Amino acid sequence: MATKKMILDLDTGIDDAMAIAYALAAPDVDLIGIVSTYGNVLTPDAGTNSLKILELLGRTDIPVFLGEEHSQTTESFEVMPISAQIHGKNGIGEVELPAPSRAIETQPGVDFIIEAAHKYNSDLILVPTGPLTNLALALKKDPEVADLIGNVTIMGGALTVPGNVSPVAEANINQDPHAANDVFTSHVNLTMVGLDVTLRTLLTKKETQLWRDLDTTAGSKFADIVDYYIDVYKITSPHLGGCALHDPLAVGIALDASFSKTMDLNMFVDTTDEMWGRTIGDPGRLNEENPNVSVALNVDADFYLKRFMDYLTKLFAKN
Amino acid sequence: MATKKMILDLDTGIDDAMAIAYALAAPDVDLIGIVSTYGNVLTPDAGTNSLKILELLGRTDIPVFLGEEHSQTTESFEVMPISAQIHGKNGIGEVELPAPSRAIETQPGVDFIIEAAHKYNSDLILVPTGPLTNLALALKKDPEVADLIGNVTIMGGALTVPGNVSPVAEANINQDPHAANDVFTSHVNLTMVGLDVTLRTLLTKKETQLWRDLDTTAGSKFADIVDYYIDVYKITSPHLGGCALHDPLAVGIALDASFSKTMDLNMFVDTTDEMWGRTIGDPGRLNEENPNVSVALNVDADFYLKRFMDYLTKLFAKN
Repeated sequence: MATKKMILDLDTGIDDAMAIAYALAAPDVDLIGIVSTYGNVLTPDAGTNSLKILELLGRTDIPVFLGEEHSQTTESFEVMPISAQIHGKNGIGEVELPAPSRAIETQPGVDFIIEAAHKYNSDLILVPTGPLTNLALALKKDPEVADLIGNVTIMGGALTVPGNVSPVAEANINQDPHAANDVFTSHVNLTMVGLDVTLRTLLTKKETQLWRDLDTTAGSKFADIVDYYIDVYKITSPHLGGCALHDPLAVGIALDASFSKTMDLNMFVDTTDEMWGRTIGDPGRLNEENPNVSVALNVDADFYLKRFMDYLTKLFAKN
Repeated sequence: MATKKMILDLDTGIDDAMAIAYALAAPDVDLIGIVSTYGNVLTPDAGTNSLKILELLGRTDIPVFLGEEHSQTTESFEVMPISAQIHGKNGIGEVELPAPSRAIETQPGVDFIIEAAHKYNSDLILVPTGPLTNLALALKKDPEVADLIGNVTIMGGALTVPGNVSPVAEANINQDPHAANDVFTSHVNLTMVGLDVTLRTLLTKKETQLWRDLDTTAGSKFADIVDYYIDVYKITSPHLGGCALHDPLAVGIALDASFSKTMDLNMFVDTTDEMWGRTIGDPGRLNEENPNVSVALNVDADFYLKRFMDYLTKLFAKN
């Protein structure tokens, strides 16, 4: 079997940075490119941050593309104050990294996704960890993409727990519910890794200390970046006792769903004012066979955390 | 092993009537009593309807008790117009049944629940298919009941699909979210059979015709009662193609959960105006071990429908 190809679609962000590290460290996938989106930071800053993280990890061979800068239902996008608080104003915990030596690609990110879908078909895995604006636009420009692409695993949504920006909406979906609804109700083979599971996989300073102890640049920088995130979680979500591994968990489940408990469900995303951004079962398609969405409901957090630490620690040891 | 004992807590109602029939027909349980509540009809009418259905099925040996007439946060209760439409004004599809020969018990229904919990302990299964007012009051009067009772399986709530009286609330929970929250956050070993699954198990006139063909009083009357329900569903939920087996499914899963897919989750019931009656995972207890609620997420509808028809058709053939 051909090795799976992965595209990350990131609003890079601290947990996005960990998602990059996980995808690079995983032995069973080739990261072929990173598309940038808006959310934790502006799209261009997401691109720059991705390049910086790739360079920190010695992988300047991987191209970074720019996606859309805002949803199709808005004129512009500004970073929410809570996002700046959680990820720092620069998106990577106010940690300084050298300006990247590699430039952003000139090809638009949406076109890169379409091209890769045709080239790799079912071997392609797309992991968007921000709003679904880029993927929705790719599906609009080329509807074949929905059937070509092997799997899309998103970090986003909340089915069995409340949202984090409203009682019903998770932050990524909340940015562009219309795009999310286009994706959820398409033919895309979709896996939803939402707050249901990401709030169950937690990292603490006990783990980041192991990175720091490596005495490498990558180990030290990642420890600094993630400690910033852990410190904010102590203020915003003190009951958790750590920071949530939102985005790297999506990459982990995209590559191996065996440690997660899932349910298949036809879903939609509510775009009414009252329920804006809610990801929920579609009553009109409840009894339709072969639902296109697999929702992660629970995970073996200990299993995942061990794999996460094995992967990232080995990678940081070499950089 | 001792045969399981079951108490039904019903707002009898058409699907409640089917729940009585299912509990009587099931070979592996003794129905020891029915407590009455409000919802589809007023509490006293629920009691009368339960007595009538028991008499139709030749089981005047089973006592019927009256529970509370309204929630503890309201002064009174009136049947909602939609409930009268769905179940008929008399609650059993405007079908006439003889006045019952047995009288309602004088012992309050809540006290009967408490007494049975002490007598049967883990062998007792309670199946409330209306608001949880009676059980919440039993837990308040005698907190030991939460640990004594073997299992409580409710018809109520909605986790992975929208509600049916608001985008977030299912009708039974909506009547008394405070009571529901007391039950969900107690030690009770709770199984939630909500809209997630009850909208997947559907009955049509093809099945009720089989009852009619039996040429028995019970078969004809049940066919008349349930046909009324199916006709209303054609108006209120035409996309379903049948009527939902809400309450009898709860009895079915209470006795055998093997044909359902479940998840364990610590839950709460939202009592804020905005999210009134929402049944959802409790973020503060997401990572607590041994959740007390098992939520039915999916069912093998064909398996259940076959068992349902086997049980009820044999019972109706004899009456």
